[in-house]
Amino acid sequence: MTQLEKVQQQVADLHLDVAYLSDPMTINYLTGFGSDPIERILALLVFPDHDPFIFAPALEVEAIKDTGWKFPVYGYLDHEQPFQMIANQIKKRNPNPKVWGIEQSQLTVSRLKSLTTEFPNATFNTDLTPNIEKLRLIKTEGEIKKLDEAGKWADFAFKVGFEAVKVGQSEQQIAATLEYALKQHGIMQMSFDTLVQAGAHAAEPHGATSINKVQNNELVLFDLGTIYEGYISDASRTVGVGTLTDKQKDIYQVCLEAQLTAQAAAKPGMTAAQLDKVARDIIDRAGYGEYFIHRLGHGMGMSEHEFPSIMAGNDMELEPGMCFSIEPGIYIPGVAGVRIEDCVHITKDGCLPFTHTSKDLTFVD
Amino acid sequence: MTQLEKVQQQVADLHLDVAYLSDPMTINYLTGFGSDPIERILALLVFPDHDPFIFAPALEVEAIKDTGWKFPVYGYLDHEQPFQMIANQIKKRNPNPKVWGIEQSQLTVSRLKSLTTEFPNATFNTDLTPNIEKLRLIKTEGEIKKLDEAGKWADFAFKVGFEAVKVGQSEQQIAATLEYALKQHGIMQMSFDTLVQAGAHAAEPHGATSINKVQNNELVLFDLGTIYEGYISDASRTVGVGTLTDKQKDIYQVCLEAQLTAQAAAKPGMTAAQLDKVARDIIDRAGYGEYFIHRLGHGMGMSEHEFPSIMAGNDMELEPGMCFSIEPGIYIPGVAGVRIEDCVHITKDGCLPFTHTSKDLTFVD
Repeated sequence: MTQLEKVQQQVADLHLDVAYLSDPMTINYLTGFGSDPIERILALLVFPDHDPFIFAPALEVEAIKDTGWKFPVYGYLDHEQPFQMIANQIKKRNPNPKVWGIEQSQLTVSRLKSLTTEFPNATFNTDLTPNIEKLRLIKTEGEIKKLDEAGKWADFAFKVGFEAVKVGQSEQQIAATLEYALKQHGIMQMSFDTLVQAGAHAAEPHGATSINKVQNNELVLFDLGTIYEGYISDASRTVGVGTLTDKQKDIYQVCLEAQLTAQAAAKPGMTAAQLDKVARDIIDRAGYGEYFIHRLGHGMGMSEHEFPSIMAGNDMELEPGMCFSIEPGIYIPGVAGVRIEDCVHITKDGCLPFTHTSKDLTFVD
Repeated sequence: MTQLEKVQQQVADLHLDVAYLSDPMTINYLTGFGSDPIERILALLVFPDHDPFIFAPALEVEAIKDTGWKFPVYGYLDHEQPFQMIANQIKKRNPNPKVWGIEQSQLTVSRLKSLTTEFPNATFNTDLTPNIEKLRLIKTEGEIKKLDEAGKWADFAFKVGFEAVKVGQSEQQIAATLEYALKQHGIMQMSFDTLVQAGAHAAEPHGATSINKVQNNELVLFDLGTIYEGYISDASRTVGVGTLTDKQKDIYQVCLEAQLTAQAAAKPGMTAAQLDKVARDIIDRAGYGEYFIHRLGHGMGMSEHEFPSIMAGNDMELEPGMCFSIEPGIYIPGVAGVRIEDCVHITKDGCLPFTHTSKDLTFVD
């Protein structure tokens, strides 16, 4: 049974007349067609007893057919009325669909209004977001192979990036160098904007790669990832330049211990919250608890915001095939920021990382 | 009056108790804080008679303060309940806010449910999306300066990109080369994935830059843009390699005539639909109408999906300060694709482009 057939089964089991799936990532996952339609309409319609269809901008129709999609696809032009056209296609299959499933975490209020205008007697109370997220939660062997491959390119990027670190080079120049090397190898898309942050700048965990230049005797933080056949990598390393103070080294070692201990502990049966606590306790005990201001990790696969979220309060039990980041960080404003991160997948009795660059404190330049 | 004060005025005029603004682009526009919170919560709350506040992930709080934001900002940690916390802050200012304004084109159904849970007696029927879009529609002189600067970097990218075109080079290598050159100059973010498409591949207007190699005697299409201080550029050029057939040259000249004629025609008082028709009529008359499968242009500024949309059916009158693309394209499957695009801003009596790279048929390699 394909994943799309499983969704069709759920639509039948939930007694839905139709499911309107609109998250581009869901559509990519279920059909193999990856695209960001921005403000245009892209939807996958699934029925209990009819073939599904894709509704898309006319621009995308050829690309959808090229994926081998064997069901209907309907395109619309910019000046046409997409929701009327979707309604017409639905009514050909079911003149009066009453019970709808939607992705409430993706569908906007205005688009729900458009659907409601076309189908004023329908109800839209069934949220299929959790069903889709559960489907995506356990990765198949094929998915893990792609994640492994994406991880290899992240390791390659670290290698190039570390070589590019020189006192006086800007964070931006280092990021440009590693991305260029990836693109020369055909890896065109990063999972997110590559982060290179030197010295105290790394204490802003959501800051951006800047014109700040690497100076001697500081830590340089890398957080990067690539996309490989629709699957991402995401990893962080922090490296040293010159001679570090005891404080800088201490922050590094505490963060490293937290990361290694959590990665060694992750296995089926423990909860996401318990795993977060393994790392957090180590950082708390060392006195840096207030500087670890984010969850331990996030689920990942086709994106970096999937289930499971590795954080306090999440009692989801880890299971083989789940994929997520383990990324403790310590950010001391004005001093330094350290983050060390591998993404892993849960195995029968532990976990395996997608990236393999050494986590020992490494000095570059 | 700042743009934020104008929104506050509208909130009062519309008799709203509170406005919940959640589009990251809106927040950037009104506060100067640019960030993509992905699945985390970022909101700007505006009241008729209290100071506004920002609610954000804890990770972002320092960066928000660094922008000079002078009103309160509240952060939340990943394991906390953001909507409860937002509700608590709102209730300190108004214990029972009944009439809400929201951005219906951005707010998801699930987040509206979260707000409704906190405020079960409130109504959320006022959509502020059109108000914000109208506010953003007319660009100030300061905004146009940034758009001009972003345009200059697009021109620079064309120059580097054209030099990189060689028979046997892949589309990806050409894109990598021009992006690297930009990043060496500190231009770190493209407005969208750089598109380089050679030969028949360019007939897929929403295809991606691929390993397809440039061959002799074909057209190569570039579509690219950069981000400069939060403002984008977006431009397309199509260049020739070797010797072109009469058909290839004809497609180019028809597309060029459509582009130049529309750009010369754009001025205050005509409608978006009329401008679309200027270009479309030329392509129709030349017999290529069926191959021009998208609108003539899109509004742009901080993003490439703003008002006004230049398409049939849009009777919005052009006004000084409006910014949009003029980008006719002809895509003949299996043969070639041509698109020629400048983004422009409407002036008192015409329009001026942000990019200046020659549009005459240029041969490279």
